[in-house]
Order: sequence, then structure tokens, then C-alpha cells
Amino acid sequence: MTLTILGCGSALPTTRHNPTSQVLNVRDKLFMIDCGEGTQLEMRRARLKFSRLGHIFISHLHGDHCFGLFGLISTFNLLGRTAELHIHSPRGLEELMQPMLRYFCQQLTYAVIFHPFDTDRSQLIYEDRSLTVTTIPLRHRIPCCGFLFAERENPRHIRREMIDFYQVPFYLLNGIRLGNDYTTPAGEVIPCERLTTPAEPARRYAYVSDTLPLPHVVEQVKGVDLLYHEATFAESEQARARETFHTTASQAAEIASQAQVGALLVGHYSARYESEEPLLAEAKAHFPSTSLAYEGMQVEILSQAIKPLTEMWVQSSDVSLEPFD
Amino acid sequence: MTLTILGCGSALPTTRHNPTSQVLNVRDKLFMIDCGEGTQLEMRRARLKFSRLGHIFISHLHGDHCFGLFGLISTFNLLGRTAELHIHSPRGLEELMQPMLRYFCQQLTYAVIFHPFDTDRSQLIYEDRSLTVTTIPLRHRIPCCGFLFAERENPRHIRREMIDFYQVPFYLLNGIRLGNDYTTPAGEVIPCERLTTPAEPARRYAYVSDTLPLPHVVEQVKGVDLLYHEATFAESEQARARETFHTTASQAAEIASQAQVGALLVGHYSARYESEEPLLAEAKAHFPSTSLAYEGMQVEILSQAIKPLTEMWVQSSDVSLEPFD
Repeated sequence: MTLTILGCGSALPTTRHNPTSQVLNVRDKLFMIDCGEGTQLEMRRARLKFSRLGHIFISHLHGDHCFGLFGLISTFNLLGRTAELHIHSPRGLEELMQPMLRYFCQQLTYAVIFHPFDTDRSQLIYEDRSLTVTTIPLRHRIPCCGFLFAERENPRHIRREMIDFYQVPFYLLNGIRLGNDYTTPAGEVIPCERLTTPAEPARRYAYVSDTLPLPHVVEQVKGVDLLYHEATFAESEQARARETFHTTASQAAEIASQAQVGALLVGHYSARYESEEPLLAEAKAHFPSTSLAYEGMQVEILSQAIKPLTEMWVQSSDVSLEPFD
Repeated sequence: MTLTILGCGSALPTTRHNPTSQVLNVRDKLFMIDCGEGTQLEMRRARLKFSRLGHIFISHLHGDHCFGLFGLISTFNLLGRTAELHIHSPRGLEELMQPMLRYFCQQLTYAVIFHPFDTDRSQLIYEDRSLTVTTIPLRHRIPCCGFLFAERENPRHIRREMIDFYQVPFYLLNGIRLGNDYTTPAGEVIPCERLTTPAEPARRYAYVSDTLPLPHVVEQVKGVDLLYHEATFAESEQARARETFHTTASQAAEIASQAQVGALLVGHYSARYESEEPLLAEAKAHFPSTSLAYEGMQVEILSQAIKPLTEMWVQSSDVSLEPFD
């Protein structure tokens, strides 16, 4: 589970921060969260493969979270994509985008499928064999949700020597990996724990932007391995944060602390800050395991921790893509 | 008259080239030509003042030439712009953009005024005291026009000593600067040339993208000081150029040569080229005064020549803008 930050600025992009977008890699499937202007380019810079992206999750319909969709969809079309692209968002996006898509991508080589969700309650909006995505209702100026990405429980590891010793039939192994005990022909119950070693812990990543700080978020992100929380403002701008339905760095860190998350990443910085170090200092006072998000940042999400990866930002273009001019 | 290149890639943006946009500065008024995704950011990088921009000219409705409009208009709104913004384009843009603007910029602080033009004939689409803008009909896959920016004739300079010598009345001076001769009370005609020195030459800049190479373009850009012409492909891709309604570097240079322009700037490079040096070499074989456009390039347009200016690209944000988060 690897997270790449493509943009962590707020509504006004600056030369230091792009509008919001990030990509979560779960077993080589890419999941995009928000898609501000310029996202397709940042995805190339990060060497994330377009073909691995199947689902995009849009938190809310403000331009800095979705204006990059047009260029991205258009480029995929020029490159001859055939796989479906799924876009999950609060209601309204399809109606806004369809006239544009019909005009600018007249012969779309692939299907763009919109999945609107309600923002007033938490819902499961995606699941596959290894992952579920659940919405986190937020409170912003317009309907808005965060997202909780949770790996499914991994199967436990079979202890080969114990299976041999008890002569467990092969057809029972899958059940045992999922937690079943084994009852011998003689009626003896062999607990699963004796037959297996623990699975890798299932990891969870929570994305929370843009919102007022909310107590119910604490409940929903309890114990996640990594929490990304918006921290648009410093404490000195608390009134402005409230007025614009945003969170300060301290407030984000308090939520992380109360939720006992493994690590906190803050972003969605107001354009007014030339450096975000003061935001970091304010957050760390409440929650020491805080890091500042930055464009190109790549972290592996571990159990209750993150590990920074080598920056894979590149300057040269990926020209191996077959371009259409 | 200064030209800044914000983007000179083609449909597929790469990490080396942004989609098309450029800004022409004429006596401190900024005129934008095309507005691909990410243009607002490139404008900041180039330190071009948002408030100086009043008119945007869109050559055609392909995404790589107009997807940046949403972010730009939205950001101007967040910054509280009040001055009108005029968008000149082939028909259809207003109908596409209005639903988006209504949704994303609900309380627009300024008026966005669309001026559609027909692309089948050359038309004057803008004029002020110092400049005219005329369309250059092009031939692309969809309706498309280039633009000819022409400074008006500058008034000639009065030779003070001659005016005094002939005792020319003050109220006649404006007419003499514009070319009138002076007739003395005795009936002697004093030619304008004796009373004045020549004006600075009026400069002309022609923008031609995207198109098949066209003979009538030669006529319309005859003798301009600077011609920007698309050169999407190298000569080896001539068939592909024809098929996609584009021009090769040699063809662009032939047009420049036939039109006897002062200088040629080529751009709109296909994403397939890792370096554009071969395109430059091919163009120079036909027209030596050719340069490659690149992001951040800034040139002053002189009489039949260009002068490169110091690169004004910056890494730090212009945070003096009052941001809204």
C-alpha cells in the first residue's frame, strides 16, 4: 500500500503546490483521490502507470478537486484506453461532465462510468478481493466526503509441519487460513493458532479533506495506519478556518491523536503560507508522528507507520506511450 | 511587444511540454492565446499579472487549447477580480462552459464575456487604440483560426526646431504626426517628412496553430516581425502530419521563407520527440532565423527580429495575491 501525493495545495494553486490529487497503490491497482488541474502531468512525473488506474474518488465538486478530470479522460482517450474508468463522487458530476465529454471526446475509446454517492452517511462505495472503500461524511461548504481505504483481512499463513503432523485434508486449508479450527477424526479440536502463523496486518488509510474538524471523524478513522487530514490554516487563522469550513493544523493533529492513528500527513495548505513549517510545528505539538505532504512524496503505508520511499519524480517524459497528436 | 510561451506541447502533455498557451504583452496589456490545462500556474511562474489580462483568444475547441480556462476563471473569481474577461473563440465554447461556470463559480465577481467568431474567413475581432487582432482561417480537424496581432501605425515624431521655424500652429501638430503636410500662410507646402522624423515601426505577430500548411497563410502573414507556426512533426512523419491536419517543421519554415517574416518560432511538438533539435535543423534548412519555443521563453518582438529576454521563470509563489481558501 503506497501513497503518492500529486498535489496538496488548496483552491489557489501556487508555484509550490498543485491543487489536490493523490494516488493510492494497493497491490498494483491504482486508486486516485481527487483530481485537480494538472493531475495527469503529475501522474506522469511520478511514473504512475495510466493503465493501472481504474477508479477515481472525488471528495467534492470544487474545481481544485476535479478540474483535472477533463484532461485526464481526454489523454486516456488519445492513448486508446479500452478499460472502463470509474468515477465515484457526490451527485452532480456526471451531469456537469457529460456535455463536455460528448464534445471533446467524441469517439471515446473506453467507458467512463459515474457512481454518485450521498454525502450524509457513511457508505461502502467500492470493494474487491483485497480492499474496501467507505465514505467519511465531512462538513464543508458543499456536500463532501472523505474516504477510508481498508485492506481486507489477509489469510493467515499455514504452518506446513503442523498440517502434516495432524494430516489436515487439503480441502480444509482455505478455511483454516481464514480462521477455522480443525477437528481431528478422533474429535480433538486443534485451534487455528496452532496450525497457522498470523497474517500480515490489514492496513487502513483515511483521507479527510475539506472539512471543519469533526468528532465523528475520530470514530471513523480510529486506529488507521495513516491519516491524511487537511490542515489549510495555522492556529492564528482559526476564525478564517471556521468561516471557510476548514481545519487548522492543530485541530488535524488533535483528531489524529484522539483517533490514535499510526501517522498523520497534513496538506491542503492555504496559498498564503510561503513555508508550511509553522503548520508542522503546531501539529507536532499535539501529535508527534506528523509529516507535511508535498508534491512527489511517496510513502509506503505500514502497520501503524509510514516509510518514505525514494522519490520517483522524473524530468524526462514517458514517451513509450503511443501518442496521438 | 513581448511574447511569453507558457506551453508549446501538443495534445498529449509531457513532463517537458505543457499544452498550448502563450501571452502577448502589448504596452502592458496582456493578451492570451489558447489556454491549455495548467496555464494559470504557468502564468504565475512567468510572473505575468492576472489583472493585466483582459482578452483570451482560443484558436479551436480541442482540449489541449482550452481546458485551462476553468481553473483560470475560477482562480480569478477567488481572487475577487472585477474587470470583465473577454474570450474570443470559434462558436460553441460559451454553450460548453456556461453550465460549468454556473456550477463552479456560483457568485462570479466579474463578467466573462464570450465573443464567438466564424472560422471560414478572416475577420477583425479586436481593436483598441494601439492594436488590432485579425483571425487567420486555418485547416484543422475542427474549425480553427490563427491570429494576427498588428500594432497600429505609430505617430511620427515632431522635429521641434522645424515646427518653430515654420511657426506651425499647435492645433495642426496631431495631423502632422499622422502624416499631413503643412501649408504656410504664404501657400508654401512643407512636406510632413521635413517636419517630422519616422515613427517606430508598427510590429506584427502572427500565431498559426493547428493546421495543415496553407498557401493563403503566406499571404496573410507576409512580412510579419514574428511568426509562431506549429511544427508538430519532423519531415519523416509527413504522412502522419497530413492525416492529423498538422504541419512539419520544414513546411512551417517554407511558409516563413515565402512570407519573408522577420523570425520564426516553432512549437506544438508531438509528444514522440524527446528532443526537438531535429525539428529545428529541418526548419533552419529552409529558414535560418528559426527558434524552438519552450516553456518560459520570453522574447521582445522588434522590427523583423526578436530579442530573447532574461528568463523570468520563478520557483517561489506570488503570495502577494490575496488568496481565498
